Amino acid sequence: MSPSVSVHLLPVLFSPEDLRGGIAVVIDVLRASTTITAALFAGAESVIPCGDIEEAKRAAANLPAGSSLLGGERGGVKIPDFDVGNSPREYTPEQTGGRTIVFTTTNGTRALKRCEQAERIVIGSFANLKAVVESIGQSSQPVHLVCAGTDGAVSADDVLCAGAMVAGLEPFFGPEVLKENDAGRIAFEFFAGPSQSDEALLEALRESRGGRNLLDLGYDADIEWAAKRNRFDLVPEFDPKTGRITVAASGT
Amino acid sequence: MSPSVSVHLLPVLFSPEDLRGGIAVVIDVLRASTTITAALFAGAESVIPCGDIEEAKRAAANLPAGSSLLGGERGGVKIPDFDVGNSPREYTPEQTGGRTIVFTTTNGTRALKRCEQAERIVIGSFANLKAVVESIGQSSQPVHLVCAGTDGAVSADDVLCAGAMVAGLEPFFGPEVLKENDAGRIAFEFFAGPSQSDEALLEALRESRGGRNLLDLGYDADIEWAAKRNRFDLVPEFDPKTGRITVAASGT
Repeated sequence: MSPSVSVHLLPVLFSPEDLRGGIAVVIDVLRASTTITAALFAGAESVIPCGDIEEAKRAAANLPAGSSLLGGERGGVKIPDFDVGNSPREYTPEQTGGRTIVFTTTNGTRALKRCEQAERIVIGSFANLKAVVESIGQSSQPVHLVCAGTDGAVSADDVLCAGAMVAGLEPFFGPEVLKENDAGRIAFEFFAGPSQSDEALLEALRESRGGRNLLDLGYDADIEWAAKRNRFDLVPEFDPKTGRITVAASGT
Repeated sequence: MSPSVSVHLLPVLFSPEDLRGGIAVVIDVLRASTTITAALFAGAESVIPCGDIEEAKRAAANLPAGSSLLGGERGGVKIPDFDVGNSPREYTPEQTGGRTIVFTTTNGTRALKRCEQAERIVIGSFANLKAVVESIGQSSQPVHLVCAGTDGAVSADDVLCAGAMVAGLEPFFGPEVLKENDAGRIAFEFFAGPSQSDEALLEALRESRGGRNLLDLGYDADIEWAAKRNRFDLVPEFDPKTGRITVAASGT
């Protein structure tokens, strides 16, 4: 029997214990998932996700001087006193290489914390779509695609990416991936409809709740950045025991 | 400015006070919305939605003997001691005409209760799609399309109907109905994708969570029944003050 694939359109729509024994993919396309993947690709040692600003400051203060960067956003913009914001473009090898990123964002880190009971917790985005699908496609555990949403509401950017993952998992698991989970079918059809070409996907991301927020803040370049599929052959994975996100698999 | 149209993919995804001043459309295609509409078309005086079985029995006991019918389901099947279940086909003019239906179902009545702060509360389904759209299309209040879901999970039957309503409202309100609400866009694309022909819609309803439950129980005829669009030119409306659903508008 193939593993089941469930899409959760928001983190509140599952109970943490539902994920036990499964693989959770945390999807916050605009921008936490994309940015975490970019930071690790740029050579960050690890990313430490923190629920709030004070926790992040304490975590950074406990690391050797110069070994970490404080990154993240509130309301989409860089937090005062932080080194970097939540734009994937900021996480260059010069800035990031060899360092630990202590990271807090509004939606993404909250979604991640809710997945802590899963057996594996993976970070997914369009930037590492193929790598995530191939990593999960080999497994036999139930898969939970968790859309982070924006400020508690369903955000189309995450649902599109979940739909793209469902489509990508079909060759591995067979057409049953579309059965038994209506949110999965909805995400699949939403992605398959207007959003398969690169231009259409970019436009759909701009029109999403997360995308509209970023356009208002002048971050269109980040949307373009996040819309490009398969930049990185890299699967970030969160270990609740160490509190760190590191690179689990890489073909590069 | 056109009224906003918000889709709520489940009742838990809004706060009851969000609906103040707006029009709520409660959508439980399989089957409460469809059945309530059928009962009123068949000549029921009104429908009294009740949260639980005991409340329904008490309400029926308070009505003059012979003037009411107890209707509803638990787990999809007729409740013991009740007169009728939750199949629209049971609500014939002979059975229903002139009577008050005291009604309780698992998902639909719960969704209805959560909408009590809205200014108007309308019952929507494929069976009265056009009537609901035309009734709402004339208004200037914010519209909330509320998908009842099945046992707390998103159910494709309701999301398809919400998408069909968004599509129907576009000529009234303009393309802005698709802006500012990602769940609305998702429902619209989900409906517009594979489900516009009658055969495809029936198949999509069968594959929905609610539909699969009904197939397991041998109720395929109810799915066929619920899939037929615009059987009734009739808009049931719930008044929390009287606790009754009655016919608000009818072109027949």
